[in-house]
Amino acid sequence: MVQVAVAGASGYVGGELLRLLLAHPDVEIGALTAGGNAGTRLGEHQPHLLPLADRVLQETTSEVLAGHDVVFLALPHGTSAELAAELGDGTLVIDCGADHRLVDAAAWERWYGGAHAGHWPYGLPELPGARDALRGARRVAVPGCYPTAASLALFPALAAGLAGPEVVITAVTGTSGAGRALKPHLLGAEVMGSLSAYGVGGVHRHTPEIAQNLSKACGTPVTVSFTPVLAPLPRGILASCSAPLSGDAAAVREAYAKAYADEPFVHLLPEGTWPTTAATLGSNTVHLQVTVDADAGRMIAIAAIDNLTKGTSGGAVQCMNLALGLPETAGLPFTGVAP
Amino acid sequence: MVQVAVAGASGYVGGELLRLLLAHPDVEIGALTAGGNAGTRLGEHQPHLLPLADRVLQETTSEVLAGHDVVFLALPHGTSAELAAELGDGTLVIDCGADHRLVDAAAWERWYGGAHAGHWPYGLPELPGARDALRGARRVAVPGCYPTAASLALFPALAAGLAGPEVVITAVTGTSGAGRALKPHLLGAEVMGSLSAYGVGGVHRHTPEIAQNLSKACGTPVTVSFTPVLAPLPRGILASCSAPLSGDAAAVREAYAKAYADEPFVHLLPEGTWPTTAATLGSNTVHLQVTVDADAGRMIAIAAIDNLTKGTSGGAVQCMNLALGLPETAGLPFTGVAP
Amino acid sequence: MVQVAVAGASGYVGGELLRLLLAHPDVEIGALTAGGNAGTRLGEHQPHLLPLADRVLQETTSEVLAGHDVVFLALPHGTSAELAAELGDGTLVIDCGADHRLVDAAAWERWYGGAHAGHWPYGLPELPGARDALRGARRVAVPGCYPTAASLALFPALAAGLAGPEVVITAVTGTSGAGRALKPHLLGAEVMGSLSAYGVGGVHRHTPEIAQNLSKACGTPVTVSFTPVLAPLPRGILASCSAPLSGDAAAVREAYAKAYADEPFVHLLPEGTWPTTAATLGSNTVHLQVTVDADAGRMIAIAAIDNLTKGTSGGAVQCMNLALGLPETAGLPFTGVAP
Amino acid sequence: MVQVAVAGASGYVGGELLRLLLAHPDVEIGALTAGGNAGTRLGEHQPHLLPLADRVLQETTSEVLAGHDVVFLALPHGTSAELAAELGDGTLVIDCGADHRLVDAAAWERWYGGAHAGHWPYGLPELPGARDALRGARRVAVPGCYPTAASLALFPALAAGLAGPEVVITAVTGTSGAGRALKPHLLGAEVMGSLSAYGVGGVHRHTPEIAQNLSKACGTPVTVSFTPVLAPLPRGILASCSAPLSGDAAAVREAYAKAYADEPFVHLLPEGTWPTTAATLGSNTVHLQVTVDADAGRMIAIAAIDNLTKGTSGGAVQCMNLALGLPETAGLPFTGVAP
Repeated sequence: MVQVAVAGASGYVGGELLRLLLAHPDVEIGALTAGGNAGTRLGEHQPHLLPLADRVLQETTSEVLAGHDVVFLALPHGTSAELAAELGDGTLVIDCGADHRLVDAAAWERWYGGAHAGHWPYGLPELPGARDALRGARRVAVPGCYPTAASLALFPALAAGLAGPEVVITAVTGTSGAGRALKPHLLGAEVMGSLSAYGVGGVHRHTPEIAQNLSKACGTPVTVSFTPVLAPLPRGILASCSAPLSGDAAAVREAYAKAYADEPFVHLLPEGTWPTTAATLGSNTVHLQVTVDADAGRMIAIAAIDNLTKGTSGGAVQCMNLALGLPETAGLPFTGVAP
Repeated sequence: MVQVAVAGASGYVGGELLRLLLAHPDVEIGALTAGGNAGTRLGEHQPHLLPLADRVLQETTSEVLAGHDVVFLALPHGTSAELAAELGDGTLVIDCGADHRLVDAAAWERWYGGAHAGHWPYGLPELPGARDALRGARRVAVPGCYPTAASLALFPALAAGLAGPEVVITAVTGTSGAGRALKPHLLGAEVMGSLSAYGVGGVHRHTPEIAQNLSKACGTPVTVSFTPVLAPLPRGILASCSAPLSGDAAAVREAYAKAYADEPFVHLLPEGTWPTTAATLGSNTVHLQVTVDADAGRMIAIAAIDNLTKGTSGGAVQCMNLALGLPETAGLPFTGVAP
Repeated sequence: MVQVAVAGASGYVGGELLRLLLAHPDVEIGALTAGGNAGTRLGEHQPHLLPLADRVLQETTSEVLAGHDVVFLALPHGTSAELAAELGDGTLVIDCGADHRLVDAAAWERWYGGAHAGHWPYGLPELPGARDALRGARRVAVPGCYPTAASLALFPALAAGLAGPEVVITAVTGTSGAGRALKPHLLGAEVMGSLSAYGVGGVHRHTPEIAQNLSKACGTPVTVSFTPVLAPLPRGILASCSAPLSGDAAAVREAYAKAYADEPFVHLLPEGTWPTTAATLGSNTVHLQVTVDADAGRMIAIAAIDNLTKGTSGGAVQCMNLALGLPETAGLPFTGVAP
Repeated sequence: MVQVAVAGASGYVGGELLRLLLAHPDVEIGALTAGGNAGTRLGEHQPHLLPLADRVLQETTSEVLAGHDVVFLALPHGTSAELAAELGDGTLVIDCGADHRLVDAAAWERWYGGAHAGHWPYGLPELPGARDALRGARRVAVPGCYPTAASLALFPALAAGLAGPEVVITAVTGTSGAGRALKPHLLGAEVMGSLSAYGVGGVHRHTPEIAQNLSKACGTPVTVSFTPVLAPLPRGILASCSAPLSGDAAAVREAYAKAYADEPFVHLLPEGTWPTTAATLGSNTVHLQVTVDADAGRMIAIAAIDNLTKGTSGGAVQCMNLALGLPETAGLPFTGVAP
């Protein structure tokens, strides 16, 4: 059995990691740590995780995390590099935070500020070449939730030269993506019954990550106009993505069918069926559809994911499976919880 | 007092019309009609409209509607032309449906099918030249809810030559926009906790209407890539709109400030503040913000409205005010109901 | 015009007061104050209140509040007595908080702790005798939201001797009732998709207030089993209330019809129709229905209100109208915003 | 492997059965049938069940259902007796509908109308004596969702003589409990932002079922005042239950601790912690808390379940496990999906 620790166990990403790990056939759950919640029972924060309810959260230190085969970090950015260094290469460290996602130090400094901590193998196995880099890896940078949805929605067309490199994305998300932060605009009374855009105009930190993924996949610089929208649901991302069309409908569809033919978690829906986030709730699947708009000269792809599962914690477990040589799908649900 | 009848009083648009008309200082509410619900009390369908609860719905016929100064039609498309002809020019007919929105008969036939009923003065007073055409009009075609949001979000930049004519719109909406239709995907259990796209790829019927508005406003053909997204809230549209940038940020902002300086219902928010649909709930206001993304070379505008108020019924009452020479803002709320 | 100040203008109750006061024909809005938000624009906190968006919030002091005809206090409990004393009897002080609701000092100390500040005329005009005490009053204690719904649902049967004095109440509420407090369980991601009980077993502070109202109305001590439930909606209370039956269905119905025959804001629905909170959204109305369960030997009454309107701020404005001799319904909506 | 068929596979209960059965280690999914949806792909109705998406729904006939070890019926009431008779005793028939829940034919006729089809072993294993009757059973009547929550919340106190037999229940539910019925009041736009009571006054069909369970458990007739409330969430029941208190707090708590000490799916939460339905989403667990209100002389118990899982389909699978001699918890999730 693989011994696993989770740092940041009282947050949403940590909770989702634990939900999945509890159902993983090859995993034993070890230390659970937290920041301000250290010393409290997990059950106070994650009442849905009954089998772990009486576990007491420890401090997030390398001493507590040491001695596990795998350590998941679900922490604020800026903290993982030091912890990983202290844990050494004997431990597989999977960072659900942003620290090691960007290759370009200048992009890091512009969007996050502070020094760049370097980059780790990027944990989106469905991107061209990514899976091989994750097999046997000792460090993994789990993608952001928006980049997961948007990159998978767009790369097949761009990589196949069927869409131009100026992409436009509006992605609508549930509020768990913001974590358990106590901010007025995340209060239930503000969120329910409201839609709001934020981080408009290229300032959202997931923008350079999407550009990095798509530029690499199609071998040419891609510009990304990205607008995130907050909607009244706990989980789910629906990414509405488009790009200038340079092929025909059949070729576009064929590119997606080919790109995802062997992917266990990415499903190109039957023609005419559009994704719903509800169908992905709690699952590691991506529901995808693509079409072309000849009048507007654009191809449009829509992807739906659960931001906490495939968008973060499920993707992280998938990467663990790959890094450890376990079956890639172990412990990961294919079916959503609906309605 | 102006005598007003509402056809389609048991639906969402009819209900919102009546809510506004009850608070209108110059209006007396006359006949209320319905289709299948004729013969029932209004209170069964609109329990929020207490003062009208005991009114019995009549059949939607020109006999019942005749004799009023104003008749609002909140009916399925394809029915208003005949009713309007029977009512004659003595009656101001305000059609909340689609029949007379499109100027181009070919566009009508392509997106709606059947014969084009012709076009009426278009009821979006904030578009260039539109207000004058509405003063004294005897017929008004109320815009669709998405076209209201998207056209107001985009035309100032396009008309000023600060953005190119290939626009991309993803607009997220509450479910009342679909009316009271009994369809499985509109059930609460399906809607709550889910986001879904529909009518993707230029097939939504509001696409040609948006193109018509923007093309006219900027004097050149505009192509529209439009993706509507259904989200779990009863009311509200958040339109995320962008276009290739051909000016600078200051000029763009100035264009919007100028376009809406004297508009009572369109509010360009202070810089850095982004619209929320909750702030517009039940009001006739549009909350708007605009920015530029230099990296992506696009200008982005976000508009929030209540799809039933400014998006349909409030816009309709605003048009009635203009057509009758009443104060344009009479009976129309500026403030939303929040949280 | 009546000059009005609002203390606590950046919270939900303050915002709802201002929404109503903006539409009040006899009111001019003066000073707006806040605690931690003093010095900021109102528009940052209440973007729906466009006409006041640029008002800057002042400190909550008696100096700032002095000189107005009416001061509404929407403050944490424990602060109103001192402010009111400083303002003097020349000012009508309407306290939306709890400080002066309870007559019994021992009950105050048990449920709130600290010294009892005394009691003021109780602002629920529909209770027997209450309206007269409010005419010309200089101080008003606005009821809690649950006591408003539960007291109006129950008193007619109890006062008429048709139901016994051991009442059981489960009241479901939207999350704005908790105010803008930054607590994890009020985050949108926690609230949406969840129902939860809290303050179970008589510990909720509204329990003694309900008991006080019902005991006074029926002239005998009433015991109250009260369970509040939090549900995923911004506004609304649905109070499910029952008591041992000691009359028949017709007599019960007659008691309610009689009690509310002349009340502008309390509506006994037609038989067989049950209240929905949506029908009351943003209005000052109470929707009420009553029935008997002969098998269980209980009468059951269900009341729906908007917790921020009739439940707090609307009730407060209604009291202001009474205290100042204005028409009781001035500025108060009868119709809800639905769907 | 156990061969299983599901009749009514396109509805919510059928979909939840299939979600659970897909994860069950001992089950192979055979025929899937439907009524009006026969002939269509399951994926059209249950897009979350990817592994079964291309299965075509067959007609609900005994010919199609024959030859399976287990047949789950998720059908409208009135249809299961005939189907079960045709299938014979060789097939384990588990009826998720109401037909065979009530022992008392008069109660059946009063609440459902028509002839009573007789009663089958009642599928709530946690009730005293129920588990034994389910082991090896060939027919199972799955309880209603409300009776599951309310019976488990109340029976330990009643059976122990710590609470009197006049119980009062207000249970709040998500809208999937009403099934996929196309009714206006179940539309998303009506449901979101609203709370409503229905079936008030003892007329809801689950009333006699709760009374039957509690009367049997405590050996004396129990009267039930039951009020269901519809709230804006897809899944979840929170049952607020109370009864006259005839013991003390410690004894009450002890009775619950004892009743559920060995139950895998019923969790008495730590003192001071109250259940949330979110913690049970998609799981077969019941979260329970109990307290006493000395002032009101009542004991209060609150239970949270997922109405589709433990409330129906999960309970049904639990009964299948018992009937077939499989581990009772096989294929049933303990952890909810939250937030």
